[in-house]
Amino acid sequence: MSKKSGQRLRIIPLGGLGEIGKNMTVLEYGGSMIVIDCGLAFPDEDMLGIDMVIPDMSFLELNQDKLAAFIITHGHEDHIGAIPYALQKFHVPVVGTKFTLALIEHKLHEHKIEEADLRCITAGDTVQFGCFEIEFIKVSHSIAGAVALAITTPLGVVIHTGDFKVDYTPVDNEPIDINRFAYYGSKGVLALLMDSTNAELSGVTPSEMEIGKTFEKVFNDADGRIIVASFASNVYRIQQVVNIAIRHNRVVCFQGRSMVMIAKIAKELGYLNLPEESVVELEKLKNYENDRICVLTTGSQGESMSGLFRMANANHKLIIGNGDTVIISASAIPGNEKSVGRVINQLFKRGANVVYDRLADVHVSGHARREELKLMFRLLKPQYFMPVHGEARHLYHHARLAEKMGVSPGNIFVLENGNMLEITDKGAMKLSSSVASGAILIDGLGVGDIGATVLRERRLLSQDGLFAIIIPVQKSTGEMLGLPEIITRGFIYVKDSDELMSEAREYAFDLAMKLSMEYRYDWSNFKSSMKSGMKGFLLSKTRRTPIIMPMIVEIDC
Amino acid sequence: MSKKSGQRLRIIPLGGLGEIGKNMTVLEYGGSMIVIDCGLAFPDEDMLGIDMVIPDMSFLELNQDKLAAFIITHGHEDHIGAIPYALQKFHVPVVGTKFTLALIEHKLHEHKIEEADLRCITAGDTVQFGCFEIEFIKVSHSIAGAVALAITTPLGVVIHTGDFKVDYTPVDNEPIDINRFAYYGSKGVLALLMDSTNAELSGVTPSEMEIGKTFEKVFNDADGRIIVASFASNVYRIQQVVNIAIRHNRVVCFQGRSMVMIAKIAKELGYLNLPEESVVELEKLKNYENDRICVLTTGSQGESMSGLFRMANANHKLIIGNGDTVIISASAIPGNEKSVGRVINQLFKRGANVVYDRLADVHVSGHARREELKLMFRLLKPQYFMPVHGEARHLYHHARLAEKMGVSPGNIFVLENGNMLEITDKGAMKLSSSVASGAILIDGLGVGDIGATVLRERRLLSQDGLFAIIIPVQKSTGEMLGLPEIITRGFIYVKDSDELMSEAREYAFDLAMKLSMEYRYDWSNFKSSMKSGMKGFLLSKTRRTPIIMPMIVEIDC
Repeated sequence: MSKKSGQRLRIIPLGGLGEIGKNMTVLEYGGSMIVIDCGLAFPDEDMLGIDMVIPDMSFLELNQDKLAAFIITHGHEDHIGAIPYALQKFHVPVVGTKFTLALIEHKLHEHKIEEADLRCITAGDTVQFGCFEIEFIKVSHSIAGAVALAITTPLGVVIHTGDFKVDYTPVDNEPIDINRFAYYGSKGVLALLMDSTNAELSGVTPSEMEIGKTFEKVFNDADGRIIVASFASNVYRIQQVVNIAIRHNRVVCFQGRSMVMIAKIAKELGYLNLPEESVVELEKLKNYENDRICVLTTGSQGESMSGLFRMANANHKLIIGNGDTVIISASAIPGNEKSVGRVINQLFKRGANVVYDRLADVHVSGHARREELKLMFRLLKPQYFMPVHGEARHLYHHARLAEKMGVSPGNIFVLENGNMLEITDKGAMKLSSSVASGAILIDGLGVGDIGATVLRERRLLSQDGLFAIIIPVQKSTGEMLGLPEIITRGFIYVKDSDELMSEAREYAFDLAMKLSMEYRYDWSNFKSSMKSGMKGFLLSKTRRTPIIMPMIVEIDC
Repeated sequence: MSKKSGQRLRIIPLGGLGEIGKNMTVLEYGGSMIVIDCGLAFPDEDMLGIDMVIPDMSFLELNQDKLAAFIITHGHEDHIGAIPYALQKFHVPVVGTKFTLALIEHKLHEHKIEEADLRCITAGDTVQFGCFEIEFIKVSHSIAGAVALAITTPLGVVIHTGDFKVDYTPVDNEPIDINRFAYYGSKGVLALLMDSTNAELSGVTPSEMEIGKTFEKVFNDADGRIIVASFASNVYRIQQVVNIAIRHNRVVCFQGRSMVMIAKIAKELGYLNLPEESVVELEKLKNYENDRICVLTTGSQGESMSGLFRMANANHKLIIGNGDTVIISASAIPGNEKSVGRVINQLFKRGANVVYDRLADVHVSGHARREELKLMFRLLKPQYFMPVHGEARHLYHHARLAEKMGVSPGNIFVLENGNMLEITDKGAMKLSSSVASGAILIDGLGVGDIGATVLRERRLLSQDGLFAIIIPVQKSTGEMLGLPEIITRGFIYVKDSDELMSEAREYAFDLAMKLSMEYRYDWSNFKSSMKSGMKGFLLSKTRRTPIIMPMIVEIDC
């Protein structure tokens, strides 16, 4: 690869900075462009009715001719969730490991996208797209098949860690390939983009194996059924539970849609070792004593349609009760604390013994803490550093750590989505201009059609409901044809509010009469005066402010 | 007090069990009834538009003739918040310490309740209501003026700890009166009702003084302004910050409505020592260098109208920026994690240094952990035990702890709100019947008028909005008078949806024509068929399910 003078490398995050979610990073050099990851985010609690959020890809649309490939580091939703939407626009290869591609394939199938150029690689492989040569490096993470990227560009090597931790004793005995990072570190690293999720936390994230001890203890103590809730995609966790269950002479049963689906895929691909005789369908569990049963289920976040939730609420063929032991092998994702707490409470009420992260070490994170990040800084000695995958506070702490680890402060770039980091042979700088980035909201079939206006309406409706006033008028004369009709939803319980409703009808009639004199044919002013009048009336009566919808029905008769 | 044979003591929780919030416990013996605490709860996230939640007090209404007093353990909202609603129904004394009553008074004033029989006591005092003799015992907690209750009944002594921790080195040098608990323990305790909030957590909750060390360090290191966000009612925390600020030659400025209000009350009552010369109004801060300024503000939960939130979002006279140090001296209440996270991110983005519980010891809980609970079990040796103030999981762990501490399993009662524990000289039992209990929702002026139906409407409206179809018909003939009109809110962005809207109008017209033949005058069936028809149409077009409101306007012309 020849380095043309005057050429520049641009690194452009389109998602994943200032947030945990919808990761997407663009690398551009000359006529070559690749995209790292293509994830979704779950909606914030103020995004009412929204199913998911994906990155704004209009910058990619503007650069369709350059766009060469999507390079995927691993199969978590915040790294693959937007691929079906991307592939509707861009017909380029998607590159990832076997497990990652299997999850992507499943997702494309659900979206009825049958033609996609999926290219399978394994750690150690190298692929070339335009002037980018990409080597995949094995890392430890809470999903199988996670890789980091060493991207050789005409200006030097860019390392993108993906999501990672340093696990010297992983369940599959394939530890993070620190030697390969060391190799690149010795050769010289131009820029490092590193996972910031746990940059606030000192020490190291424990090995996945560590929680095996807790599980052993719980399995030793339990004499009833054991139900373990975990993330379906954490194949290592599942393998550990299966191994321990078998050692304790228990059969395992998978429950919950994604748990069943991923277990099947992982088994087929050889990521999960499941002896035939140890896996039992739900219907067959009745043939086993309680102390021979272990159920693996979804629902570690307390999701209302998940396996665990339904088992806890007697809305499942398997109902959790007295004598059962439940292990919630996960921590609550921020925002899910209350729903997790509710399912724990419900399980205790049903008489189960519940083991969760507040009580015992039943979960470890998949992300590196500060001592692991320090190891990477020491191995890689990057010239430039850009923290990725984190909220502002994580990026900030990561940047401060980089400084402590010897990266020159002027070479550390805390970017926001849409910002551009430009590197030339002269130096690096954050450009003053930005590209389009942001959140595209998905609601049903709608992609990006819901914006601030509709969300505002939903928020108002959710607070105090609506109050509709239908006013029939004679088209030709503008005269009112009878009494206004009133319909409400989410405002008051109409059946118990006769008095208020009849007062409101009367008030609306008087007001409409008065306004129809004043504003005949000027329905716009009529409506806004009607609104503010009714708003005042309802506020004084109820101290609530529903959305008020005056509706003029013009009749020609 | 003579013990009449056949008489029974009943302990009836009306709130606070299976939840953290709206604490209220009834004690009844013969013709005497007292109520301990009268709190509110904050609405769950599925209680859309609800301002707050109070206990169902209909059991008290049925027993108005017996009801002698409300005994309040301390001034937190989950112990006093429902008093204005209670006093509208019950004209009985409210008993509490000076600080507790000051907060109640402020609350009553806001509700325009001017006549209330507030009776001030101090720790050590004893009051008598009917056959109940109540002694108030000083405890440590995260608010001034917290007391436990030793209630002597004809059957024996009932201890209610209120919310407490064991702090041997409190800021005000008035530690929990463990000698008094020991006194009652030696005399014999019939029943213990104890705070379960931290019953999951091993060890002890650190002394309030402990966090002083962290504050000292932060104040030593900071050379800009220091902004501390905390709960306004934690007078001890505020006193510590003020003391440290003064030692570091900083003036203090109070911001946020409740912070200003409570600081004023606490100062007047002597709970807060604020040297005149050290307290400065916001407008005067400009006369001081940044390293001489300390601001105390509300907003430790990231609340959107709070002082800290507005300072972080440049919507306050004091705008936080580069060089400022912010200490968030609180932990997130479950459900607030995301809003706290957002304000922290925003502060980092503005360039501030932020210190919070993930990074340093800037907060301690006000509730006893397991070693403190054990101390109380050893001191009090209760015959019966009932865990209070906690979700199911807290109560469960507390009950298991009681067993370990020697309370006989049959004498431990995990109740739910509305259950009745009956104690006689023969023994104790949970009665099979329950009294009315539950959540009364407050929305504006409405108390209890919003129920499941309205909340369901609000939830549906919040998800996909509404779709109204107005169909004018001739009253006498039932014939349609013109095209149906369609109005939506929160469903689609109408301005960008011309095509869908005109298709929908057409579909609605055809459907209405067809149905008006079939169901002329049978508007109920007409509407429900209209609903299901339009639902199918919109689902296929958008995969959204708004509330569909067909509205028939009958015109007589």
